[in-house]
Amino acid sequence: MSKAVVQEMREGEVSVPLPKRTDARLVFIGRIRTPYATRKDCPRQAGEKSAPCRIEIDPQWQAALTGLEAGMTVQVLYWLHESRRDLVLQSRRSDGRVSGTFALRSPIRPNPIASSLVEVLDVEGSTLIVRGLDCIDGTPLLDVKPDRCPGR
Amino acid sequence: MSKAVVQEMREGEVSVPLPKRTDARLVFIGRIRTPYATRKDCPRQAGEKSAPCRIEIDPQWQAALTGLEAGMTVQVLYWLHESRRDLVLQSRRSDGRVSGTFALRSPIRPNPIASSLVEVLDVEGSTLIVRGLDCIDGTPLLDVKPDRCPGR
Repeated sequence: MSKAVVQEMREGEVSVPLPKRTDARLVFIGRIRTPYATRKDCPRQAGEKSAPCRIEIDPQWQAALTGLEAGMTVQVLYWLHESRRDLVLQSRRSDGRVSGTFALRSPIRPNPIASSLVEVLDVEGSTLIVRGLDCIDGTPLLDVKPDRCPGR
Repeated sequence: MSKAVVQEMREGEVSVPLPKRTDARLVFIGRIRTPYATRKDCPRQAGEKSAPCRIEIDPQWQAALTGLEAGMTVQVLYWLHESRRDLVLQSRRSDGRVSGTFALRSPIRPNPIASSLVEVLDVEGSTLIVRGLDCIDGTPLLDVKPDRCPGR
């Protein structure tokens, strides 16, 4: 189980108790290796100029990479294991403006799943080399899928 | 816990055992109401012409909708509770071509999380009226967030 990191709340922020039940279970299928050791090291918006990162997929899933090639854009889903999950209103550090969690792409959310579109630079065995991720080193991987069909 | 529906495998498909461990737990935050009662009723690619659907978010999360408005595009994450999770190679029904799970947007994947971009038509209390979803009625909701910033 991931353990939420306790963080101070800012003015205007509101939390609600997260239900204790487990409605579905996730299995981590690998880890994301990045140059960013802590959240403070992570770039705010990873763009094309960001550092290459490694998506190390557990070997049992290697066959599932069949058909993925360099040059493709893939959607990566990963678990923000250090995020608290109980805030419904959040205050932006930059200007103190308060917004609802579902109106933000903040890592703090009831199910802290991040989604990023990245370019595949290379495939090495069950590892993808990609550009465009901004998460901390060791982030658990949930899924990789091709970008949605053109026109969607 | 969601229960995988047992389905026949097609020629060329390969499964691996899903790990029994729970690495992280999900909590369902609402349900998606659509006109589609079964998977066969769902449109293959939901476009802008598809039917309006209701995202019914549990009332405890209502404050988290602050700032979401009609006209916005949001990313919706939901749990494909009827999907099996153990296939690494899948055969397309249309032409029998075999591809890896991570090279497909098939609902069958180790963590069956779907991601769709939809237009918000209206907000009614803790319910969002949207256009563009293609899932079955009653699909569990995981998250709603604004579309990524322009340029990403």
